[in-house]
Amino acid sequence: MMDAAQSGLSLLEIAARLADILPVEVAGDATCRVVQAGALESAEPGQITFLSNPKYRPYLKTTRASAVILTPAMAAELPQGMAALLTPNPYLCYAHVVAILSPPARKPPGIHPAATVDEGAVISSSCHVGAGAWIGAGATLGERVEIHANAMIGEKVEIGADSVIYPGVSIYPGCRIGARAIIHSGVVIGSDGFGFVPEGGEGGWVKILQKGAVVIGNDVEIGANTCIDRGAIDDTVIGDGVKMDNQIHIAHNCVIGEHCALAGCVGLAGSAKLGHHVMLGGSAMIHGHISIVPHAEISPGSLVTNNIKEPGKYTGIYPLDRHEAWLKNAVFLRRLEQMAKRLSALERALNEQGHQGN
Amino acid sequence: MMDAAQSGLSLLEIAARLADILPVEVAGDATCRVVQAGALESAEPGQITFLSNPKYRPYLKTTRASAVILTPAMAAELPQGMAALLTPNPYLCYAHVVAILSPPARKPPGIHPAATVDEGAVISSSCHVGAGAWIGAGATLGERVEIHANAMIGEKVEIGADSVIYPGVSIYPGCRIGARAIIHSGVVIGSDGFGFVPEGGEGGWVKILQKGAVVIGNDVEIGANTCIDRGAIDDTVIGDGVKMDNQIHIAHNCVIGEHCALAGCVGLAGSAKLGHHVMLGGSAMIHGHISIVPHAEISPGSLVTNNIKEPGKYTGIYPLDRHEAWLKNAVFLRRLEQMAKRLSALERALNEQGHQGN
Amino acid sequence: MMDAAQSGLSLLEIAARLADILPVEVAGDATCRVVQAGALESAEPGQITFLSNPKYRPYLKTTRASAVILTPAMAAELPQGMAALLTPNPYLCYAHVVAILSPPARKPPGIHPAATVDEGAVISSSCHVGAGAWIGAGATLGERVEIHANAMIGEKVEIGADSVIYPGVSIYPGCRIGARAIIHSGVVIGSDGFGFVPEGGEGGWVKILQKGAVVIGNDVEIGANTCIDRGAIDDTVIGDGVKMDNQIHIAHNCVIGEHCALAGCVGLAGSAKLGHHVMLGGSAMIHGHISIVPHAEISPGSLVTNNIKEPGKYTGIYPLDRHEAWLKNAVFLRRLEQMAKRLSALERALNEQGHQGN
Repeated sequence: MMDAAQSGLSLLEIAARLADILPVEVAGDATCRVVQAGALESAEPGQITFLSNPKYRPYLKTTRASAVILTPAMAAELPQGMAALLTPNPYLCYAHVVAILSPPARKPPGIHPAATVDEGAVISSSCHVGAGAWIGAGATLGERVEIHANAMIGEKVEIGADSVIYPGVSIYPGCRIGARAIIHSGVVIGSDGFGFVPEGGEGGWVKILQKGAVVIGNDVEIGANTCIDRGAIDDTVIGDGVKMDNQIHIAHNCVIGEHCALAGCVGLAGSAKLGHHVMLGGSAMIHGHISIVPHAEISPGSLVTNNIKEPGKYTGIYPLDRHEAWLKNAVFLRRLEQMAKRLSALERALNEQGHQGN
Repeated sequence: MMDAAQSGLSLLEIAARLADILPVEVAGDATCRVVQAGALESAEPGQITFLSNPKYRPYLKTTRASAVILTPAMAAELPQGMAALLTPNPYLCYAHVVAILSPPARKPPGIHPAATVDEGAVISSSCHVGAGAWIGAGATLGERVEIHANAMIGEKVEIGADSVIYPGVSIYPGCRIGARAIIHSGVVIGSDGFGFVPEGGEGGWVKILQKGAVVIGNDVEIGANTCIDRGAIDDTVIGDGVKMDNQIHIAHNCVIGEHCALAGCVGLAGSAKLGHHVMLGGSAMIHGHISIVPHAEISPGSLVTNNIKEPGKYTGIYPLDRHEAWLKNAVFLRRLEQMAKRLSALERALNEQGHQGN
Repeated sequence: MMDAAQSGLSLLEIAARLADILPVEVAGDATCRVVQAGALESAEPGQITFLSNPKYRPYLKTTRASAVILTPAMAAELPQGMAALLTPNPYLCYAHVVAILSPPARKPPGIHPAATVDEGAVISSSCHVGAGAWIGAGATLGERVEIHANAMIGEKVEIGADSVIYPGVSIYPGCRIGARAIIHSGVVIGSDGFGFVPEGGEGGWVKILQKGAVVIGNDVEIGANTCIDRGAIDDTVIGDGVKMDNQIHIAHNCVIGEHCALAGCVGLAGSAKLGHHVMLGGSAMIHGHISIVPHAEISPGSLVTNNIKEPGKYTGIYPLDRHEAWLKNAVFLRRLEQMAKRLSALERALNEQGHQGN
């Protein structure tokens, strides 16, 4: 059990810090101190938790947490003696509270002696450059940028203030990244787009040199091992606030609007364009040159082969079944047109009989 | 041709080493020496091969191998003069024989001068740390651990004895890996889970700091460029003996049971739970918060959107067809409900006619 | 606007350089100088563009480019005063012109002092080895090979002349790569194939040591974060001229024929064999031990579960629909066999009625 009395913050202090961000009120003992955030079921005394989904209400009675974040409407269900933050969107509030209670550790400023930094790179004294990192000529880092161990920053790359580049990231020359980016290990930004022209017949492929760059806005997070190709002529563009999960593939000349959220294993073929606030479920794939309107949502595992012109949710997956049942049914997929024709023939035949019967 | 007489091991010696592992008997010349393992069709004299699938029996007559591993039931088919190991599971025996004949080369102990190891890291003198590797404060390596070139081991990471971390692996702070792990190049362990709360409307996403870790059991192998995210609050957990192929994505708070086998390009969304011995075919995808019972098997390319409560094999893929045929049939997928209704209407109509006819 | 008069090349000079590669003629002012290539819509004066798809003809009138590449058949549509290169395949010509106007920058020869090169490695003085790169014993680099920052080249790896290995690539021991390869960041070549034998029942998996290598031909390009596993006994083989996009997974013992093109997120299971000139669309997946004939094309998102014996285009994807519509239709996928039986029963019943009616 943590000694919440000796550290952490009181609900009053937390509410004060949240005041400019979202509406929040304290219920119960405002001096209640919490040191950490926890899940409703596993939180310990000294922790603050949240209740968002009404179906978890029963856990309110059993949680060991010292305080809970919930809606004013649910305040009546607070157990005797439990303190609370009341706010319209408890989950959103919770995200902020986690960051207030345990802000991410920042790496200390300074360039590690085992880093290799080109003389021509522009690096503020507030930046951190880790062991084995390599920074090419003409690269420019904003204030407090962190380049972790063994990350590779190509020539003339620009990275905005407060961005964190995790170990082993590779950014190709000339790419530009905004402020407050979080780029996870294994990410590759600016590799060549997949552009080749067939010589025809039994000949090979001639590479089209990829002369564009990747331009990434502010507040973008990119998950582990995701890669974003540079444009062929124009740039590949990632808007402000975009969040990408792991193992994503963004081909050359894609344009991703602000605040899009892309789940793991998603793939976008060349020149695909997402409007703002588009959400792509895990392993969704977007064909080349496709446009998707703002606020559209693609289900996991779905393939988008045509432009999407209306917001809403779109799905195209084959439902899972027991293998034997699937085997029996799937064979008829190849006969659907034939079945439809037989159905029409039956309707005509029955209709004729009906007429004959009249 | 290799000079098998001068090196390698005799079948008797091999059988002795296998004695504690599996039932095995020598047939034919027990002094026959073999230096290496090979495939039935391409093995050369001095090599030992195996016959597991009865359909390859004819190759027994033509193989140039000096010895073969096969079941006692097939011993009668041994060509004159060929030595053999008889064992109920020849393929399993073969796997052990390969390891006995040519055990993997181990890197020599010692820390390369071009490695960067924090003073606070705990590294046994039996460990290998390669050039360019970076090991953070408080990291702890068991006996004989190998950290290859340019691998990145975060603060307070723990790695069990005899584990091999290949070049360029990135392990985030606080993650724990058991003994005898094999982690291939490009693997990322402990990157942030994909956790964001929408501000709503035209607003953006607020990051939920990811405070859990990744905890990996003993005897786990992880293929190239796979990534495993750290948990949001609790840990992401990988059980003992789990084998993962390349390009896999494991989201935050997944729990993978012992001895699961995950083929290439698989994706697990957040909080998915696999019972022990689950097998996932290549590029299978598991939705968030899904549970799968032990010993279930998911076919390649299938998407699991509901809990799986019974063992067995499950499939959900659209069968491949010639493009023109697919085009014709696929259009009717959007009319299946309508076709079913027409079918019911026909049945009713015919039924009425039948009654009228009576 | 660029000062095209002072630099770049005249159309005459470009045509001369192309003379040995493809048929090309100059139309209009052969002294017209161009410095760069650009897109039809966004090109500026001083740039050369191309027109391949007839539907973009209208842009010929509005482009600001100084010259255009197009077919002789379209020469009549050239605006007054615009110079042109006439050639049967403008896009192919364009690819060559981009490379002539702005050839890729080469890294200077020399080994960076922060690189770690084993004494036993064979490296020509024309090679570049970047900071943090590691090259193992017995590795051999051809003339002008570039090993960029933090790339990892295992023992006894061979790399042919003029190949470029981008930052952070990992090549395992004993793999061989031909001339003029382009290997992008995050690529892993030669990691262990996924080979395990189940002990059976509640037991685990026994690793089959992977003793083959990866052998890659000439003129191969491999996209970011793609990985290619080494063979179990024999080698994994990639033919001359193969082009692979990002995030691809090639399992052990695959054999990929010359000039195949694999788009992003593709996966090949073990021992899959592609004939030459096979094209795989994005995220296509190939089952293990499958063979595909030369010149076959697999659509994006399709899964190949059987051998493909005839060239042509193959598809197997579930078409996207609005989620509600998909929900209604998808439920009938599990009843297709039943629907087919009801259809047959109706046909029989109607047929009998017909006979009764006669």
